Amino acid sequence: MSELPQGSVIGILGGGQLGRMLSVAASRLGYRCHVYEPGAAPAGDVAHSVTTAPYEDEAALRRFAEAVDVITYEFENVPTSALDLLESLRPIRPNRRALAVSQDRIKEKSFLNELGLQTAPWAAVNSEDDLRAAADRLGLPAILKTTRLGYDGKGQVKLDDETDIPAAWASMNDAPSVLEGFVAFEREVSVIAARGLDGSVACFDPGENIHRDGILRTTTVPARLSPAQRADAVLVAARILNALDYVGVMGVELFVTAHGLLVNEIAPRVHNSGHWTQQGCAVDQFEQHIRAVAGLPLGDGNRHADVVMENLIGDDVNRVPDLLKSRDTAVHLYGKGAPRPGRKMGHVNRITR
Amino acid sequence: MSELPQGSVIGILGGGQLGRMLSVAASRLGYRCHVYEPGAAPAGDVAHSVTTAPYEDEAALRRFAEAVDVITYEFENVPTSALDLLESLRPIRPNRRALAVSQDRIKEKSFLNELGLQTAPWAAVNSEDDLRAAADRLGLPAILKTTRLGYDGKGQVKLDDETDIPAAWASMNDAPSVLEGFVAFEREVSVIAARGLDGSVACFDPGENIHRDGILRTTTVPARLSPAQRADAVLVAARILNALDYVGVMGVELFVTAHGLLVNEIAPRVHNSGHWTQQGCAVDQFEQHIRAVAGLPLGDGNRHADVVMENLIGDDVNRVPDLLKSRDTAVHLYGKGAPRPGRKMGHVNRITR
Repeated sequence: MSELPQGSVIGILGGGQLGRMLSVAASRLGYRCHVYEPGAAPAGDVAHSVTTAPYEDEAALRRFAEAVDVITYEFENVPTSALDLLESLRPIRPNRRALAVSQDRIKEKSFLNELGLQTAPWAAVNSEDDLRAAADRLGLPAILKTTRLGYDGKGQVKLDDETDIPAAWASMNDAPSVLEGFVAFEREVSVIAARGLDGSVACFDPGENIHRDGILRTTTVPARLSPAQRADAVLVAARILNALDYVGVMGVELFVTAHGLLVNEIAPRVHNSGHWTQQGCAVDQFEQHIRAVAGLPLGDGNRHADVVMENLIGDDVNRVPDLLKSRDTAVHLYGKGAPRPGRKMGHVNRITR
Repeated sequence: MSELPQGSVIGILGGGQLGRMLSVAASRLGYRCHVYEPGAAPAGDVAHSVTTAPYEDEAALRRFAEAVDVITYEFENVPTSALDLLESLRPIRPNRRALAVSQDRIKEKSFLNELGLQTAPWAAVNSEDDLRAAADRLGLPAILKTTRLGYDGKGQVKLDDETDIPAAWASMNDAPSVLEGFVAFEREVSVIAARGLDGSVACFDPGENIHRDGILRTTTVPARLSPAQRADAVLVAARILNALDYVGVMGVELFVTAHGLLVNEIAPRVHNSGHWTQQGCAVDQFEQHIRAVAGLPLGDGNRHADVVMENLIGDDVNRVPDLLKSRDTAVHLYGKGAPRPGRKMGHVNRITR
């Protein structure tokens, strides 16, 4: 296992808030970051270098790869052609398989089921007829999602009864889709898990998530889980990471049900539901990811405080003046300019014990 | 009181590790930083912009000032001519008076004594005769220091007895100096205090400092102080900040003696003995300083963990691989390249409770 030397440059695909916080974490370990981002890059404010170019610009991709020692990403929808080129020049961590699996909901669910892990019941949907048959089999209500590129509630629609089928399918624009049956779950938790270059695995305590309109609102640690559920959650995450020969941090979203844990979704990157670690742990998820990517030993994930993380979405930023006055509250803003509805502008970690 | 809007640029004079950590803190509040540094600038890795130019370059200073909204510093020995020019273009926080007082040990001690605060006994020394007279009055051992530009044990020499006088004076190269009498102190503590643009004051818990060879080695919180001493320490710091109409974070080093608290030194900036706040408080000293400079409300300084901060000096960085494996330990490296004896390469915050 080779450790990245001090002063090395870590390339980050994507320049949003996750890249921004990764760059800060890398600086704490003596590394520099070079961000590649086609659009506006809040990460650029705290990065050593920024390349602003589309993922189709081969010359820019090549210069970027040659300027860095290892490549990671904050965002899993990087085009395959860009990844092919980059991978020929520098290691990409986490690896391509993790990306391929998480970029496609059907691949993801198949992978998880093959590992013996439970998911919500699902069916591939490529036509209105498929959708009808799937609705029949899984029952309604259910959620129809495009297999690719969806996040934060985009590219998905809820079907309450059969009359919703034509409009739901039409809204998919013929994109390959998947129907997910509803799961009666008690709560959603997520495990932020990490695997090092040496194969060691470390997990943070599971956090309990509340979503609204498909967007994460709060994560609370500790989650309300029995010791057995807590152990299960960690084992599920470790099984996924090991199966993928994964290097880095992964967010694993789980449904807690009367019949055990179901895997809702995996994200091969630092995850919004792990932001609480910034105030709860000596080594947060961003540093943990950088440690893994750089071949350093992982932090043990030990939590020394209880934390409630709340996202600041859209106009929530207007609460910042009050939040700045709140006791034991860490405000994290992303430097994004004007708020828009649904736009993540920052988050707050409140230390509760 | 006007708050600096999101996206504003904060200029930082000095690009060392303090500037680096200030820039990271500013990013959390949605600000960008522009670093001005004549030499190598570790802060540049996480700053939006860097100007590399000497403090005598008027054109560069002018461009820098025009590119920023407010100016602060991580380093108090900025030449007066540069400050004069910068101040004519943008607000400098903390103000010039704080700088003038802390740049000159005699001004500093006079200021403190006029405020009714105790210092070690001292005498101005401008010749070998002065030194002889001062040694006679204050007694030996004592420490001879240049009045300006000394830090981390530079520009100071200890006198054990009268035979040391000629060599000690010769080592000062005729620089205006001050002899400080020895104080029998129980321990040294420091208060990291902040004052906002609205005049409000907030202090972090005093930390207990251990120096070796004139360089800070460890700071431990909580310090071993009685409740009365703790209250006194905060009152001393507040008196200094209010008297200077100060805006920002100040490090106030205090000697704890049988006869009360003596002020050893003040530093008009974030301070090495406040690094523990990164793991001990929701709002650390770096963010606290940025909040003050930006006109935002101060954090309340509440401490939620016990912490031991240890500096990594010179070859101490060789311990990093082991430190990365230690439980509840946050490693902060400064990206400085090769270690040199006495060079601060990073620090470690160990959460002890």
